[in-house]
Amino acid sequence: MKKILVTFILISMLAPCSFAQKKDTKAVLNNIHQRKSVRTYSDKKVSDEVVTELLKAAMAAPTGMNVQPWYFVVLRDTSQYDRIFESNGNMRMFKESSVVIVLCADTTVTRSPRNNPNAPAVTTPNAIWRDDMGACTENLLLAAEAYGLGACWTACYPFPDRMNSIKKHLNLPANVVPYSVVPIGYPRLDEKPKDKWKPEKVHYGRW
Amino acid sequence: MKKILVTFILISMLAPCSFAQKKDTKAVLNNIHQRKSVRTYSDKKVSDEVVTELLKAAMAAPTGMNVQPWYFVVLRDTSQYDRIFESNGNMRMFKESSVVIVLCADTTVTRSPRNNPNAPAVTTPNAIWRDDMGACTENLLLAAEAYGLGACWTACYPFPDRMNSIKKHLNLPANVVPYSVVPIGYPRLDEKPKDKWKPEKVHYGRW
Repeated sequence: MKKILVTFILISMLAPCSFAQKKDTKAVLNNIHQRKSVRTYSDKKVSDEVVTELLKAAMAAPTGMNVQPWYFVVLRDTSQYDRIFESNGNMRMFKESSVVIVLCADTTVTRSPRNNPNAPAVTTPNAIWRDDMGACTENLLLAAEAYGLGACWTACYPFPDRMNSIKKHLNLPANVVPYSVVPIGYPRLDEKPKDKWKPEKVHYGRW
Repeated sequence: MKKILVTFILISMLAPCSFAQKKDTKAVLNNIHQRKSVRTYSDKKVSDEVVTELLKAAMAAPTGMNVQPWYFVVLRDTSQYDRIFESNGNMRMFKESSVVIVLCADTTVTRSPRNNPNAPAVTTPNAIWRDDMGACTENLLLAAEAYGLGACWTACYPFPDRMNSIKKHLNLPANVVPYSVVPIGYPRLDEKPKDKWKPEKVHYGRW
């Protein structure tokens, strides 16, 4: 009896370790599939510590030539929102959320060509900062989902009216554009993700 | 003694459940931070089943107005790559990888305004398909990382030379543009992610 118990204990202790890789794969995929646009939030505050973790995840995104064009403005003072977001149709959502993160990009940042750090910096315009910012925003949303938070990607670039009021009221430098605006809070309702898998959208070998 | 053992068994069994949420948060964040551009691959084949899971993750990305502009072309036949990617500097990487996924976008797809499914479809150009595709590519990369795969985002749009040869040789419809090209394989080397966290990139309240 004792032998059986000891064997059982050992299995109970080791099983979680041996399956860790598999469980992590499942956890990551599950989080990707559970992410949804959450537009209503409870009163519960998102802590500054969690906001920092979300920003760390955002800054882990890939960027072309590793230029990391991103900047972030973190907003909590809802009394400012009427001015900052005067042209944005998502005001109710912003005001209800615990924190709004404005993801910005320096569109002029350049870097020396890879494998040649001594070469002069590339002076052509950064043609792909927008793609970097898409990945960055998605990382932020996925990290929010992982904390049980609700978030919603609202577009800013390339809409001049939305961009102009943010640039002005947040005092952004001339070379920095506001790219997306993400309100975040603890979900008030139990919103469900959509199933968007459509195998007919995949072609093999050629179209 | 027996009582202690039974108690220990119960704790061993229940602990993984009670910490599941916390562990999943950690697993998701860890995966985001572990993702890196992997450019060298072993001979091991990436199974069709895993490729399908990667595509499901890609199609779980958010899209403006939920238009889901994406299409995918999955390539395995390296003998075609000299033609398809004739203008792309990443040929060695493509040929060494087990599978190359070309992420494409229908830039003309539109949808009725939200909350009014009976309204006529929006006929203005879809100004944000590119942002959708950035999130979609990032989801694919994160899912690859979760499977222990190596992948690398190579740009295609907006570079005409890269786009033209792909459009032609993959037979893409006129309204579909190739957006990014992602080679995927099991890593040959032990490449490490970069730490890109820079707290000075975050502003609070205003710039």
